[in-house]
Amino acid sequence: MSRDVHLAALRGLLGEGDVLTEPSAMAAYVTGARYDAGQAMAVLRPRSTAEVSAAVAYCVTNGLALVPQSGNTGLVSGSTPDMSGEAIVLSLDRMAKQFALDADNRSVRLDAGFTLSEVNRRLEAEGLFFPIDLGADPRIGGMIATNTGGSRFLKYGDVRQNVLGLTVVLADAEGSVLTLGSPLRKNNTGIDWKQIFIGTSGVFGIVTECILNLERLPQQSAAAYLVPSSADAVMPLLRMMEERLGDMLSAFEGMSAPAIRAALAHVPALRNPFQGGHVPDYVILAELSRTSAPREGEESLETVMEAVLGAIFEDEAALLADAFVGPPQEMWALRHALSEGVKHSGRLIAFDVAFARGDIMRFCTRMKEEMPSRFPQVTICDFGHIGDGGVHLNLVVPPESDGLADGSLEKALRDWVYAVTVEEFGGSFSAEHAIGRKNQHYYDLYTPARLKTLAAGLKPILSPGALGTVRFG
Amino acid sequence: MSRDVHLAALRGLLGEGDVLTEPSAMAAYVTGARYDAGQAMAVLRPRSTAEVSAAVAYCVTNGLALVPQSGNTGLVSGSTPDMSGEAIVLSLDRMAKQFALDADNRSVRLDAGFTLSEVNRRLEAEGLFFPIDLGADPRIGGMIATNTGGSRFLKYGDVRQNVLGLTVVLADAEGSVLTLGSPLRKNNTGIDWKQIFIGTSGVFGIVTECILNLERLPQQSAAAYLVPSSADAVMPLLRMMEERLGDMLSAFEGMSAPAIRAALAHVPALRNPFQGGHVPDYVILAELSRTSAPREGEESLETVMEAVLGAIFEDEAALLADAFVGPPQEMWALRHALSEGVKHSGRLIAFDVAFARGDIMRFCTRMKEEMPSRFPQVTICDFGHIGDGGVHLNLVVPPESDGLADGSLEKALRDWVYAVTVEEFGGSFSAEHAIGRKNQHYYDLYTPARLKTLAAGLKPILSPGALGTVRFG
Repeated sequence: MSRDVHLAALRGLLGEGDVLTEPSAMAAYVTGARYDAGQAMAVLRPRSTAEVSAAVAYCVTNGLALVPQSGNTGLVSGSTPDMSGEAIVLSLDRMAKQFALDADNRSVRLDAGFTLSEVNRRLEAEGLFFPIDLGADPRIGGMIATNTGGSRFLKYGDVRQNVLGLTVVLADAEGSVLTLGSPLRKNNTGIDWKQIFIGTSGVFGIVTECILNLERLPQQSAAAYLVPSSADAVMPLLRMMEERLGDMLSAFEGMSAPAIRAALAHVPALRNPFQGGHVPDYVILAELSRTSAPREGEESLETVMEAVLGAIFEDEAALLADAFVGPPQEMWALRHALSEGVKHSGRLIAFDVAFARGDIMRFCTRMKEEMPSRFPQVTICDFGHIGDGGVHLNLVVPPESDGLADGSLEKALRDWVYAVTVEEFGGSFSAEHAIGRKNQHYYDLYTPARLKTLAAGLKPILSPGALGTVRFG
Repeated sequence: MSRDVHLAALRGLLGEGDVLTEPSAMAAYVTGARYDAGQAMAVLRPRSTAEVSAAVAYCVTNGLALVPQSGNTGLVSGSTPDMSGEAIVLSLDRMAKQFALDADNRSVRLDAGFTLSEVNRRLEAEGLFFPIDLGADPRIGGMIATNTGGSRFLKYGDVRQNVLGLTVVLADAEGSVLTLGSPLRKNNTGIDWKQIFIGTSGVFGIVTECILNLERLPQQSAAAYLVPSSADAVMPLLRMMEERLGDMLSAFEGMSAPAIRAALAHVPALRNPFQGGHVPDYVILAELSRTSAPREGEESLETVMEAVLGAIFEDEAALLADAFVGPPQEMWALRHALSEGVKHSGRLIAFDVAFARGDIMRFCTRMKEEMPSRFPQVTICDFGHIGDGGVHLNLVVPPESDGLADGSLEKALRDWVYAVTVEEFGGSFSAEHAIGRKNQHYYDLYTPARLKTLAAGLKPILSPGALGTVRFG
């Protein structure tokens, strides 16, 4: 059948205005947040699980490839079509109606197209939040499809640990709707199928609704910058903080000097917080928080932080070159500006890798030692989540560097960095961005053959139709 | 081939002493913790993943059915053979050698045959623990296969949330060994296959090794008994405690008067803590804990608990009939004795159900209202985890009751209780005991046909051989 027949049929299912075909209207849906510009036959904007089901059934029956798209904030080309112009984008951006808070159960049932910020705005008056803290503002469905972690993973875990239930549309001829999980927290009555749809980039089905666990909003917080005396001091400092502060420690983020300098240079609102303006080689942002209501006579968290840092200075002076408590909002402003700053320092080639915690600083040191001889044009602007093992290894190169235009420099960098990450350190080449077209090659390279065979066996059972931008089989 | 040929072959693989066939030696392995006495062709006691793999490969190739068994503390007949005498039990009880703590990463890599108590005994000096709090003392492999929750779920989650990696032996002709996950906390590079083996009773593979997330041991705690003015007051009290105490609230357990009275009557070491010995209709055990080290000048948790209970008395007097702080160990001793006490009060028919938190007390009230007319011989001795929705609905009947010997009374009770649980309240008929022969019927009844078809499709991909005591397909 012709393209026009398909579009007419889809318009019949969804309504005229919910099937976009004009290039200008489709532009935002076919272009990625940082990389990629693709082409699509159409963009679908269904408003309910029933509409998603109808559209998927039509597309699968007629052999049309679908690319599910949520907030389109991802960085691995997981939610935009390729250049063929044959795929149909299915956007969740109109799936943001149902929002049912269950305050007794500390959970919310909602459509998957809500943005993270909107969810938390609606929950604020109840003193609750969905505790995934990200720089970007994705929609919930995409957060589930990539299993995002973020800066408070240390305290709250990732999306997987905070999803209670999912409604999923499968890419089969019926557009089958599965309801997986429920508001229950304890339920062990068979396979927990929802896990298959978390972190797998929408390849096995489209998440249209979900039930999320909520946490109490922190009522108090305090922040400090710690300057470790060397890279080797970072892990003992983390252990010491955990020993003394337990789960009051809600973030332990590392920032390298080049990343900090890039932020200070390119984000005018920031103030240089370091004595004499001298940026140390590496800085830890440590955050304490309490979810309990403040009580009269209770020590403030600033006092607690000061006391613990004072004790570390006294007992283990060799670990800490400097440390100071400051206003949390200002201290986080620098941390959150790192990404933006780095982007403006040249051409950015970004890596989202993860390690066992004890390996993070060893990996970063290794990169800093070998990079100058292998890729002298690269500046390493790393930062990351020391508390949970995630590292954003940002590599910045001058825009005029050889091999940028044809992608050969990026390929050479990725091949080497991922080889060190995976083969030498047993790390992950995608900590919290999941898999998209951009890292398909490394999935193919590093996934054991048996697991690819298993995935190839699972795909036709769940969603035989063409869905998403990656192959797991 | 004959039985003797198989036994000789298995002895060749595992060693003479690791294949039991004497009835007296097998007795402990073929009898369940509370129910069941089965029969087995043999009991295998492998010492390593390689030995498990060799034994499984032999059994699958020769069409022998295997029943994996861990601590054999389960209550749903998930780890003991049936009466046919044809199955072979594969016990993990000699798989307790490898134990590698990674203190930097707060994780441990270990063989799956360690008991929970032994794991925590070894971690105590490091100030760490595996934060699943149970009355029984299972082995880790079985805890993974049932995804146990326990009394501190409110703070730490279930086993699923604390497993980082698994080594699994599949029931295929090769006894394939899969390594799933690693010490990493953030890793989104495809399907998280380990999830399929968590909570599925060993049907898809045998967990032989794992990597567990560890938490800091609580450094301080306080406990109180709260007497709600009515069943309706329980949920407002929980919300109020969470609002004021946040994640310092580490347990919120409910205990009914009949359960308390049974414990006081049958466990001599207990002291009746209630004024004049009068046991209230329902009592909440609330626990506060801190994982931070005590600091000079810090308010004690007893003081915090007193202050918060005082404020609730002042602001919401109608909710609370009584409340008092006491020694945590003594208060937990009564809570932990409930199960033992109930067992001695008559014949026990136990239910492990779960609900959205707001439904728990409504369900319990419903049971108490309807039971006398439907089953007048039953005493309801319920207790449970109000904080996470789990209810241990223990029904006690006189030993001479009609229908006990032939199982018809138990069947009638289960049919009715599960119908109310699942059909009316959307609850779970197995909160944390998973599925075994004992609740196969209710799995078949309440699992959507599509999910059974999917499970039937998954089983041959992973483990075509006969493994475990249940069918998910």
